[in-house]
Amino acid sequence: MDNLDTTLDGLKFDAAGLIPAIVQQDGSGQVLMLGYMDREAVRRTLTSGRVWFWSRSRGEYWRKGDTSGHVQYVKAVAADCDADALLVTVDQVGPACHTGALSCFDGRGLPALPGANTPGAASVG
Amino acid sequence: MDNLDTTLDGLKFDAAGLIPAIVQQDGSGQVLMLGYMDREAVRRTLTSGRVWFWSRSRGEYWRKGDTSGHVQYVKAVAADCDADALLVTVDQVGPACHTGALSCFDGRGLPALPGANTPGAASVG
Repeated sequence: MDNLDTTLDGLKFDAAGLIPAIVQQDGSGQVLMLGYMDREAVRRTLTSGRVWFWSRSRGEYWRKGDTSGHVQYVKAVAADCDADALLVTVDQVGPACHTGALSCFDGRGLPALPGANTPGAASVG
Repeated sequence: MDNLDTTLDGLKFDAAGLIPAIVQQDGSGQVLMLGYMDREAVRRTLTSGRVWFWSRSRGEYWRKGDTSGHVQYVKAVAADCDADALLVTVDQVGPACHTGALSCFDGRGLPALPGANTPGAASVG
């Protein structure tokens, strides 16, 4: 078994065989989108320099940008402490969102009451 | 029906009644963790100034920081274009990860071949 298989074996996929992947722009830190990968999409993402997803709606592999031209070049990939989520740092070409927005979260704020870091609370680490 | 119910009705929860929530530090843009919320946890997050999750492993509501002291104060909440993922911007008190790391993704990089934005490709938007 090679190192890549060992890496993939270390990830936890859900009942549908998927793991959520947060995609973040390198440098700016902007969160661009959340997609889903199966084991093969993770393998392709780790080895090809391009971000691959499993499209739940279309039921097929999806190399981001093949249709739109809005390619995501892989800069780094990390798993989380439970190995059931991925953070993919990318160079995004053009907008990440199919609406033309740079991020899928742009302009979609929900009404939220902000919380306050009150005096006496532990300092932000 | 009040505005909050309208907001919650606009979100898409999965078959288990959950929506993934990316938690990002305000300012630095560091992605801290990915958690899951049900409708009630989203409602509490939008109205209390603190981040609430539904713990899939424990099967209970979880207000981040109640046990650890590592509170997440809500700065903003956004949905994505499909309304099936949330981005929660916070002020994180102390480390976000139960391991003591600031982010659950810290030090957990996977071996990945970086992609290159080649000359002639569209410029990064």
